[in-house]
Amino acid sequence: MKRNVIMSERRIIKTIQEQLDEMPNMPIPFGDDVSAYSLGNDQLAVLKTDMLVGRTDVPRTMTLRQAARKAVVMNISDFAAKGVKPLALLTSIGLPRGLTERDVEQIGRGLNAGARQYGTFIIGGDTGEASDLIISVSVFGITDKTSIMLRDGARPGDIVVVTGSFGKTAAGLRILSRDQQKLESTWKNLTKSVLMPYARLREGLTLSRTGVVTASIDSSDGLAWSLHEIARASRVGFLIDKLPVAEEARAFAEENKLELAELALDGGEEYELILTIKPRGWQEARRAAARVGCNLVRIGKATAEKHVLLSVEGRTNRIKARGYEHFKS
Amino acid sequence: MKRNVIMSERRIIKTIQEQLDEMPNMPIPFGDDVSAYSLGNDQLAVLKTDMLVGRTDVPRTMTLRQAARKAVVMNISDFAAKGVKPLALLTSIGLPRGLTERDVEQIGRGLNAGARQYGTFIIGGDTGEASDLIISVSVFGITDKTSIMLRDGARPGDIVVVTGSFGKTAAGLRILSRDQQKLESTWKNLTKSVLMPYARLREGLTLSRTGVVTASIDSSDGLAWSLHEIARASRVGFLIDKLPVAEEARAFAEENKLELAELALDGGEEYELILTIKPRGWQEARRAAARVGCNLVRIGKATAEKHVLLSVEGRTNRIKARGYEHFKS
Repeated sequence: MKRNVIMSERRIIKTIQEQLDEMPNMPIPFGDDVSAYSLGNDQLAVLKTDMLVGRTDVPRTMTLRQAARKAVVMNISDFAAKGVKPLALLTSIGLPRGLTERDVEQIGRGLNAGARQYGTFIIGGDTGEASDLIISVSVFGITDKTSIMLRDGARPGDIVVVTGSFGKTAAGLRILSRDQQKLESTWKNLTKSVLMPYARLREGLTLSRTGVVTASIDSSDGLAWSLHEIARASRVGFLIDKLPVAEEARAFAEENKLELAELALDGGEEYELILTIKPRGWQEARRAAARVGCNLVRIGKATAEKHVLLSVEGRTNRIKARGYEHFKS
Repeated sequence: MKRNVIMSERRIIKTIQEQLDEMPNMPIPFGDDVSAYSLGNDQLAVLKTDMLVGRTDVPRTMTLRQAARKAVVMNISDFAAKGVKPLALLTSIGLPRGLTERDVEQIGRGLNAGARQYGTFIIGGDTGEASDLIISVSVFGITDKTSIMLRDGARPGDIVVVTGSFGKTAAGLRILSRDQQKLESTWKNLTKSVLMPYARLREGLTLSRTGVVTASIDSSDGLAWSLHEIARASRVGFLIDKLPVAEEARAFAEENKLELAELALDGGEEYELILTIKPRGWQEARRAAARVGCNLVRIGKATAEKHVLLSVEGRTNRIKARGYEHFKS
């Protein structure tokens, strides 16, 4: 085994998992967005932890307050995708030396803003010294076994729906990486989607209660990657016939001669939900989402054939499982 | 506000806390070893998260497997101190580039070893890229509100007891920092206490069931610091009249002309439990601990006078609130 071999994030997770004894009767398999412990009576304690790392997850112009809020939102988004209400949050924070009291205050404010925006609280945590900013957030919730939306329930014929349009964060990240203030002020909504992400919690909670959702995931690793994740877990394929793109992402792509489909499919850090719905559940899902102000968009269907295809403007192509992955860039 | 001001770990935690809205009716106040969410019927969901950071928490000769196991043990130890059984663990791992598959395997094995040693399982987690090794562990458990042992229940007259002797890890850390193989093999038990720490889970669970424990903490920040923490939370003082020191720590201190009391009081990363017991509970606590093979040692008593004093060999001195703190060294 050579040193300096770069393993992919997925391979690392798989390698670690292979060393772990599996808890008997685990209610949610490894690899879904959250984990669970059975409380009996069909109740699950739902748990999630994920960390934000300064070097890879915080664009240069993002403030500490925004970074701390994002660390919360990215965890809440996974609860949203599963339809589970977050009840309490813990944080474990690694801070580089040299932060001022004001810096630390901003981190506290960002954590609180993220928690309160989604109706929950930070109830504890710990802090220590690290080489880089590390904000690990843990989320706790309780749900009925029957209402949680996992990745593995999609069936051929199910409808694929999303809670919004794509491409904004991919464009926003490009803008932020260029370090041009003028560009940033022209495309404010695009950069805002990166700096102040929003988790679709109300949508996830409402949709989970309809009983028509068969699988769900958030698009934090990109639309393409997330579709492949559901396809793999559910052993289905997808035929996507509509690619909902944010108008501003379209304008940015045109002005900068970028491939729009790439922005929409491969961008990450976007927190829309991607769900599959029972064939006759479309109207019910649409009405449920509308009640919380969300215009659900139908983008295709699940297929028995295990390919993930995009069929627009008369052409059908495979959607590659690209997306943001650590250790790759 | 100047840059590069070094804030103490406690000040950082306080600063962050001040920004947080407090959850109404929080069953365990901020600042105890674990946090909790009330499930009703006097049941609490107990949560804890803490991270191990390569640069500050992993001595040079510690293997990745040992480091991963330690990340689990240090979290389990907090559950032990509260008398709560850990039911499930999650990990969030930041890895520097350049680790081999074997390195990652070792991390997985260490996590699993730590979990299985204490009867629990890793049920999920996430991984990403970081500048340094970061292993954040989250623990979940359920307990009766009445049996959990907090920091704030000590009363004047209570007996102070500990589950073992002190000084080994402080000596062990000194040995490991010197990078001399001969020294390491001569003092194997001292270095082992650092590399393969042990959490007093059975002791904590058994003692919590006696109903005679009024306060409890682990000694991971050092005996002196931990006594001060209970004193502060319970608004009492302590008169310590016995300092249980490990024989090997005594021998090492003599050979190296070190102050033994300092090794025993100020060393950290030692996972003994420090508990206060109702005045008439001593025999019951002692018997309970003996049933799980632990020889409980009585080291003093809680006082109304709010000083933390050491009175041995006819001399009485204040025990200073020293101990291991990040950002200080």
